[in-house]
Amino acid sequence: MSKKIFGIDLGGTSIKLSVVSIEGEIIDKWSVPTDIKEDGQHIIPDLIRAIEDKMAENSWTNEDILGIGMGSPGFVDREKGTVSGAYNLAWVEEQPVAEQIRNHFNADWPILIENDANVAALGEQWKGAGDHADNVVLVTLGTGVGGGVIVNDQLVVGQGAAGEIGHMYAKEDGRKCTCGQHGCLETVASASGIVWTAGELAYTMDDTGSAIQGRIFNGEPVTSEDLFKAAQAGDRFAEAVVDETMGHLGRALGQVAAVTNPQYILIGGGVANAGQYLLDKVTDHFHKSVYPGVGRTTSIRLATLGNDAGVYGAASLVMKNV
Amino acid sequence: MSKKIFGIDLGGTSIKLSVVSIEGEIIDKWSVPTDIKEDGQHIIPDLIRAIEDKMAENSWTNEDILGIGMGSPGFVDREKGTVSGAYNLAWVEEQPVAEQIRNHFNADWPILIENDANVAALGEQWKGAGDHADNVVLVTLGTGVGGGVIVNDQLVVGQGAAGEIGHMYAKEDGRKCTCGQHGCLETVASASGIVWTAGELAYTMDDTGSAIQGRIFNGEPVTSEDLFKAAQAGDRFAEAVVDETMGHLGRALGQVAAVTNPQYILIGGGVANAGQYLLDKVTDHFHKSVYPGVGRTTSIRLATLGNDAGVYGAASLVMKNV
Repeated sequence: MSKKIFGIDLGGTSIKLSVVSIEGEIIDKWSVPTDIKEDGQHIIPDLIRAIEDKMAENSWTNEDILGIGMGSPGFVDREKGTVSGAYNLAWVEEQPVAEQIRNHFNADWPILIENDANVAALGEQWKGAGDHADNVVLVTLGTGVGGGVIVNDQLVVGQGAAGEIGHMYAKEDGRKCTCGQHGCLETVASASGIVWTAGELAYTMDDTGSAIQGRIFNGEPVTSEDLFKAAQAGDRFAEAVVDETMGHLGRALGQVAAVTNPQYILIGGGVANAGQYLLDKVTDHFHKSVYPGVGRTTSIRLATLGNDAGVYGAASLVMKNV
Repeated sequence: MSKKIFGIDLGGTSIKLSVVSIEGEIIDKWSVPTDIKEDGQHIIPDLIRAIEDKMAENSWTNEDILGIGMGSPGFVDREKGTVSGAYNLAWVEEQPVAEQIRNHFNADWPILIENDANVAALGEQWKGAGDHADNVVLVTLGTGVGGGVIVNDQLVVGQGAAGEIGHMYAKEDGRKCTCGQHGCLETVASASGIVWTAGELAYTMDDTGSAIQGRIFNGEPVTSEDLFKAAQAGDRFAEAVVDETMGHLGRALGQVAAVTNPQYILIGGGVANAGQYLLDKVTDHFHKSVYPGVGRTTSIRLATLGNDAGVYGAASLVMKNV
């Protein structure tokens, strides 16, 4: 029987798991809730039980398993197989994730842990909009802005922090970012960044008669989704907000593309649910500043796997390691 | 006898050549003038003669040669081994460089041609300030601004135009670039870009009493070297010019580092002759906008090989191919 790979995506609300054959076929996919009580000390035991149950269900022994790939939030030490500073898992101190799993199963499987944004890029490259291209970048626009960069069919890790596209300098005199700098892409192109821009523009633009601008004047909450919907419906104020956001994003993607000239830049995350409208806008802005030779060869696409990108990418860590 | 590699750097004034052993030792290094007369049709025959003479001098036969690596200006088609649009070689149309050499020697050597900026990055990685690191970026500040990016010990080529750091968007409302876009890094950080900035600032700053500002008022020519020298000597106007230039450069390098997080970013080219003064300035500005986790792990250095970077990097193309 051919060997199996476990692909695992550790998230703040659920742990997603997959079983993948060495031929790259997805055999199984399920999830268990993430229990972050007591400093997240239940997470790895719960994960171990999920693997154990699946092995028992299929009568697999250690020898049937080729390895485990895992995506995690926080800071991942690839060499040691540890994770720290993953606040949505309640993991503040360094957690010996690989060691705990390895000791439990007493197996010599490779257990490869990688940053979740990087793993999502691998997933999209393999099973999503990346179409098996050797050179792919994924940018996720959600609560924050994440990134993963693939060059020559390999993940770019650099000195440990490559792919931090959300922290590229993007806006002159921009807002303070969680990282301590000012004007990072994340401060303008994340869901909250877009809402922040709306709050600023509401008071610097004339009253356009826009309903959404009116809601801001009244102190009512507005989401990035509201803004994209209103912009698509022709609301002038919302269009201005989207235009400013996509201007910063398009320029940043042009800068990324000048460095690695990927075949595809994929845009994922909740904000990308705005779909084709967002894609058209950002592509327009991308071409306004990108080097023409790069603009002709790099295209921007929407990511297609959504929340499944991580679990596929995690399995592919082991496949690339074989 | 162990096999030899020819490393060749095609330039507008000279063709530089090296012979390197497969152990990576430089055995010989010389150059011949570039004859660009008659649409550059003498260049390849001259190059062939230089190789032939060296082989005869050492009684080497085809079997003693492992391959030829070459750096060239213009657009390089790596698959076909051709070069086009290399205006300083007077090569406008596509030149079948590899084929001409291969046919002449009737040899089955690999003949690998690569963009000259990329080849310089390989040279600095191997024998210069790159110190054999797996992740290195070279930025050359000269007539233009060039770049080469190495990730996981491999050159980043992307869809053919990776490493175009000179054409990253750098300045809001910036000047038109030769590439057709506006505000590219090259328009501010090349030798002529710096002089241009001086011309602008001369008329927007108050008269500082600066001698160099006075020369601009009088319509006298000023070079980027003059400006760096004056700035180091404490000329306030020249300091402002250098500060604006290094601000744009430092930010752009922060953006590059966010993508690939290299161990070293190396700065070469004529402008980098300003040395430690330039390095300190750009490093200061780099840290003002770079993501802290990247700033801690990527350091900026001066390139050390000067014009020799290309000839070493060209030979390393063959070594990496083995």
